[in-house]
Amino acid sequence: MATTQSSRPVTPAPPPPLFPATLGQSDRARQIADPPISYFIRQAVENPNLISLAAGLVDAESLPVAEVTSAMAELLGDPEAARAALQYGTTQGYLPLREKLLARTVAMDGLSSEDLSLTPEDVVVTSGSQQLLYLVGETLLDPGDLVITEAPSYFVYQGTLASQGARILSVPMDEEGMDTAALETVLARLQRTGELDRLRLVYVCDYFQNPSGRTLSLARRRHLFDLVRRFSRQRRILIVEDAAYRELRYQGADLPSLKSLDRENEWVILAMTFSKAFAPGLKTGYGFLPRGLIDPLLRFKGNHDFGSNNLAQHLAARLLETGAYDRHVDQLRQIYRAKRDVLQTALAEQFGRPGSPCPGLRWTHPNGGLFIWLTFPPGVDTGPEGCLMQAALEEGVLYVPGEFCYVNGEGGPIPTREIRLCYGVASPDQIQEAVRRLARAAARLGK
Amino acid sequence: MATTQSSRPVTPAPPPPLFPATLGQSDRARQIADPPISYFIRQAVENPNLISLAAGLVDAESLPVAEVTSAMAELLGDPEAARAALQYGTTQGYLPLREKLLARTVAMDGLSSEDLSLTPEDVVVTSGSQQLLYLVGETLLDPGDLVITEAPSYFVYQGTLASQGARILSVPMDEEGMDTAALETVLARLQRTGELDRLRLVYVCDYFQNPSGRTLSLARRRHLFDLVRRFSRQRRILIVEDAAYRELRYQGADLPSLKSLDRENEWVILAMTFSKAFAPGLKTGYGFLPRGLIDPLLRFKGNHDFGSNNLAQHLAARLLETGAYDRHVDQLRQIYRAKRDVLQTALAEQFGRPGSPCPGLRWTHPNGGLFIWLTFPPGVDTGPEGCLMQAALEEGVLYVPGEFCYVNGEGGPIPTREIRLCYGVASPDQIQEAVRRLARAAARLGK
Repeated sequence: MATTQSSRPVTPAPPPPLFPATLGQSDRARQIADPPISYFIRQAVENPNLISLAAGLVDAESLPVAEVTSAMAELLGDPEAARAALQYGTTQGYLPLREKLLARTVAMDGLSSEDLSLTPEDVVVTSGSQQLLYLVGETLLDPGDLVITEAPSYFVYQGTLASQGARILSVPMDEEGMDTAALETVLARLQRTGELDRLRLVYVCDYFQNPSGRTLSLARRRHLFDLVRRFSRQRRILIVEDAAYRELRYQGADLPSLKSLDRENEWVILAMTFSKAFAPGLKTGYGFLPRGLIDPLLRFKGNHDFGSNNLAQHLAARLLETGAYDRHVDQLRQIYRAKRDVLQTALAEQFGRPGSPCPGLRWTHPNGGLFIWLTFPPGVDTGPEGCLMQAALEEGVLYVPGEFCYVNGEGGPIPTREIRLCYGVASPDQIQEAVRRLARAAARLGK
Repeated sequence: MATTQSSRPVTPAPPPPLFPATLGQSDRARQIADPPISYFIRQAVENPNLISLAAGLVDAESLPVAEVTSAMAELLGDPEAARAALQYGTTQGYLPLREKLLARTVAMDGLSSEDLSLTPEDVVVTSGSQQLLYLVGETLLDPGDLVITEAPSYFVYQGTLASQGARILSVPMDEEGMDTAALETVLARLQRTGELDRLRLVYVCDYFQNPSGRTLSLARRRHLFDLVRRFSRQRRILIVEDAAYRELRYQGADLPSLKSLDRENEWVILAMTFSKAFAPGLKTGYGFLPRGLIDPLLRFKGNHDFGSNNLAQHLAARLLETGAYDRHVDQLRQIYRAKRDVLQTALAEQFGRPGSPCPGLRWTHPNGGLFIWLTFPPGVDTGPEGCLMQAALEEGVLYVPGEFCYVNGEGGPIPTREIRLCYGVASPDQIQEAVRRLARAAARLGK
């Protein structure tokens, strides 16, 4: 131990406090719900033989050890670059990284940054895209403000929004993503009830959605973009486009981002991340912000941390520069495509033919991402206290109950016969075994 | 570009929005003040020949490139360890790191974790200690709640507290740090006025304080700890002990932490960081939390980012394990001690002898840290619009006006004749030249 050690202090015992004071918490702290993740951690601890298709982690074997090793060696081998990476950065993020992220992202839509009125000054680097989503809420939402999400939606962000006092309305989805006709109905109703001016955000995960795997169709993208413009009054209704899974496309053509429709950079916040298509351990996300949003958002970020991990940002810039990032994404696509196919095939084998333990079970067939969404026949309760979960835990498989992905309100009662399966973490063998276990669990339901 | 590119979308131009809607901001966003740092960035941009003793950055030449290179090579050379570092971590932080941080920190006080009723479950790893301070505010403060700080205090956290709606009261300091007799007077007054139950936190930077360089004496530590216990009613008044600079001690004996007085782990939040004594680029801070605080705080952190940069945490654990961290802190102490001595000597040469351009100028003589605090004679205005700043910018030297480190209220008007000098970034030659420039600027004041 190199620090100077003091000798053990001889402190006279202080008198006891006069009152048995409690720790106390802020009002917001008392209102934050325990996140659903706690449920899964508890199950995993109590059932060590469980195969989890619940956790939204990524494939461990394919994590980019070689790419990071080589880029880090280059970075640290250049003393000036190394020192810059180990010093403080800026709150907004490392400029060369922001430049590369901008160029890369607009190129996905076949556009230039000028086409979208974007400059590196509209880009912010955050501690994962989750921090960006948090900051967006702090910057734009007052308690009681309205946010519209898809039903089902990404449960972590629903929890975040609720913790920030937002009231969440949700709009049903179908195979084309958010039902924008239903959205229009909701908007028209808010207009009638005078609540339209409390609506701040429409949040969509529009590529291979977490949790359903669905992608918003091009026609719906245009409709959605048109709607927020048409229904905005004093304040803009902004779209938050969470494109975390966009790069994990395994088949089919890419679709233009919602951001690509926003030529004046006024309506769409685009959130992206290195976590899914590269490595979560870098905890590096990034956002493209409508004009005027960056300054107030950076004031919050300045108070949070005055800038995300600088070493990771310098590393990320180098990974983009050398093409290592792109090569790794290509590899990941092969790996996840294969795992998705294993899961689809196993579902078809176990549930898709005569004699299925659960006739009527349906599931999504996403072209990318990490998730498949199953809808059981009426009468099956997939909830944490339901019969299916009980049987699944006994058989040794864990899923995310669909009801965790809904908020109360709008479209009647929350559906309780859906589940989310993630093929990110489990190996192909484990995926097959997990589906066999799920089939055995389903087979026990009728008994 | 490896991603699938869509062809340029042929989007029909959407109709213009019906209303010229503005972006809008949350109430909190509208109330956040522009941070003082903006002022310094503007000055630096406009005055490229400036030597800045304002920025609180660290010495660039001594950043631990060799230590990080070697620890990173070890980490990434072990495939299993590398994959764990590149995967998601937990919200609370990497357990082996928390264990080492706990052992190391209690050892500074010659204690065991049991002596302080602490376990690794009471430790959280955050994105710098700034994030810990932010989370503490979110978890404990409602708008209108009271926080007591030192006067002067760390201006970034004062801004953070204000953005969270806290009302800040400040208590004067002298050479022994916060004047705890004055604190007792404030507490007694709050008791009389019925506001004591709104007081949540007493924030002290108790080792080589930013900005003054002062250290809280042992007698004052005991008095402070006694006071929060004695004056707590329904809810505990907690101490936030910001010990960011503790390890940068250049002479004299270490003092027991406030945390070391808190044997039942009930009263003191201890905030520490790798940024000052190792490398800011790792953006890794950590906190030791009173019993009961970790769970609500982690619910906020889960919403922020569900865990700080995992790669940096695994690296940090290795740096502690191998002793590289301790060796580097030892080196840093030599370097900063020398720079501090250069600054003290230059101040003595320029201002401390007959013929000083500013008779009556006084300054602190800290045993550690990165800051020296100067008090000019009455009549000198050190503020951003004052004569000294004007002359200093013309001479080419930048300092932090002392008034940035005060909040309104309590002890009468804010002092306007103090400045903070930081010897972190500038080289010894630059420090000497900066003080010569400051002396020339001061000499012009009388003219």
